Amino acid sequence: MHTFKAIEFSKNQLTLIDQRALPLEETYLTCKTLEDVTFAIKDMVVRGAPAIGATAAYGMVIGAVQNSDMTLDALREHMDKIKVALDQSRPTAVNLQWATERMVKHGQQYKGNQLSEFIEFLKGEADAIYYEDAEFCKAIGEHGNTLIESNDVILTHCNTGALATVAYGTALGVIREAHKTGKNISVYADETRPRQQGAKLTAWELMKEEIPATLIVDSAAATLIRDGKINKIIVGADRIASNGDTANKIGTFMLSVIAKQYDVPFYVAAPTSTIDYEIQNGDAIEIELRSEDEVTLIGEERIAPKGIAVYNPAFDVTPCENITAIVTERGVVYPPFGKNLKRIRPEE
Amino acid sequence: MHTFKAIEFSKNQLTLIDQRALPLEETYLTCKTLEDVTFAIKDMVVRGAPAIGATAAYGMVIGAVQNSDMTLDALREHMDKIKVALDQSRPTAVNLQWATERMVKHGQQYKGNQLSEFIEFLKGEADAIYYEDAEFCKAIGEHGNTLIESNDVILTHCNTGALATVAYGTALGVIREAHKTGKNISVYADETRPRQQGAKLTAWELMKEEIPATLIVDSAAATLIRDGKINKIIVGADRIASNGDTANKIGTFMLSVIAKQYDVPFYVAAPTSTIDYEIQNGDAIEIELRSEDEVTLIGEERIAPKGIAVYNPAFDVTPCENITAIVTERGVVYPPFGKNLKRIRPEE
Repeated sequence: MHTFKAIEFSKNQLTLIDQRALPLEETYLTCKTLEDVTFAIKDMVVRGAPAIGATAAYGMVIGAVQNSDMTLDALREHMDKIKVALDQSRPTAVNLQWATERMVKHGQQYKGNQLSEFIEFLKGEADAIYYEDAEFCKAIGEHGNTLIESNDVILTHCNTGALATVAYGTALGVIREAHKTGKNISVYADETRPRQQGAKLTAWELMKEEIPATLIVDSAAATLIRDGKINKIIVGADRIASNGDTANKIGTFMLSVIAKQYDVPFYVAAPTSTIDYEIQNGDAIEIELRSEDEVTLIGEERIAPKGIAVYNPAFDVTPCENITAIVTERGVVYPPFGKNLKRIRPEE
Repeated sequence: MHTFKAIEFSKNQLTLIDQRALPLEETYLTCKTLEDVTFAIKDMVVRGAPAIGATAAYGMVIGAVQNSDMTLDALREHMDKIKVALDQSRPTAVNLQWATERMVKHGQQYKGNQLSEFIEFLKGEADAIYYEDAEFCKAIGEHGNTLIESNDVILTHCNTGALATVAYGTALGVIREAHKTGKNISVYADETRPRQQGAKLTAWELMKEEIPATLIVDSAAATLIRDGKINKIIVGADRIASNGDTANKIGTFMLSVIAKQYDVPFYVAAPTSTIDYEIQNGDAIEIELRSEDEVTLIGEERIAPKGIAVYNPAFDVTPCENITAIVTERGVVYPPFGKNLKRIRPEE
């Protein structure tokens, strides 16, 4: 069990942990209006695709509550405007639009004529979005835990925890589960340049859970792996091709090469929704290039000369042959991934 | 030719580029007194072992000039006190004490009886320390340049430039020389966490020289190497064992593994004084652990939760089998390094 709630909906209010203040302060923001929710998304109070999706879904509920002086018909028509307001709060977040679209479609299924019942009907779908993600993460944690042995020292990269999902996390969900079941594990967390989610978020979550953890710069992992001081690596995924090639935060591929060279198991943990069965391999995954400022500025501090060119890819692609297994909510998948990922493919 | 002078001694004054202000401002500090010099060393106006050594040597001269109202005998006796003041300005800098010791011993060789001549005699030795390093770097640059081809894209790590040495640099000296001879090279500079010498110093030097350069986070190098976008890697060295195993800034070993895996030549550039013929291999090299603050603080910005454990090794050891060649002032050395490094061993 995690000892904080990143997202909690109660009495028509949404309480979010304020990720802008981490790792220095644990503060919460309570959203009572649609404007509060769009602010939270826009200003990155909440980050991570599943977390943003669940936030937007509850934002649809809050927007409906706020307009409950309308007639039911007027409110049903108004739902599209609430969706647009939420979608515009972060136009590039695919999961946000997926969630608001799902909420709109669900609302259209309502057959009754009670406004309060309509809002409860919407809330049911937002809860479904929330609990599906939480349950998938829990299942990933339990399947992944079968790979972890007592006294394992585990390396992880970026943040794949309860702060990125709605609860538990993916790779960090496996670590949570192993700790919870008393396996006496310890963790090395890569700081994960450029945005340092490892230092800012993963280190904070691990301390919060009282899981023994040590922070390192990304390039310090190699010697630890070679010297046998790390015996498992587990990372998340942004997108997995049907052959198992995995796009994840920049730095993941580097770890996979060192791990393979020194025979350390390298695991990817992600829900099956991350698997893109439409693409054959990683060559089809376009790598997003991000702002130079992520590399040259840290907070207010400029660390590079003005005018220097910067290459800042958000992700890299780890080839399937460097991956020992992929942990999903439907179980642990081993190579050959092409065949075995197909076997766990959810029905459309 | 570099377009700035990191260290310049003229008319009994020592002018140093102020490395504290880089990469944002190019300012210089002129040291007129022994106190100015000890301040510059203590406050890290000057960094890098050879640069500190030359600064301390000129500091001995400045200290003598400052006391030229003494009798020659009194001044000769006083030189030890000047040495102590300099040594205490950074007690862990081996090159500092090596330089002041060499200056004291040289002073003892003076057979005349003119105070002004004694000071000139000292200045001659400080110049020798300065020019030896500059010439070694120049020679490293010229030998290394034989390995570089037109249109090479070269990756380097940390700062090994004119800011770390007295002029030219080692690995960066090779890059300078290749650029100067019109080879149309371009460079990727690793930012080099935790202290970011790549972002702060190397990027600044490359821009200053107008060598096309791109800054990346350390873990972004792996994909560039795999995709054939980097065709040479050249790094410096802090210590080289007699079998060629090389201790250098953390992150070097990681690069060497990726380079070997994808058949990219990996070169080390360093003066023969870096070779420790007394140690058989890298296992004998103790890795300095540095302050947690280097990882958790960037400037005034705290990027990790308070209380998180940090593992912060300054260096790592690249095994000789990952190194294509070692470039020294005495030429390019290829494997087997055990035999071939012996061949270029300077006489004691």
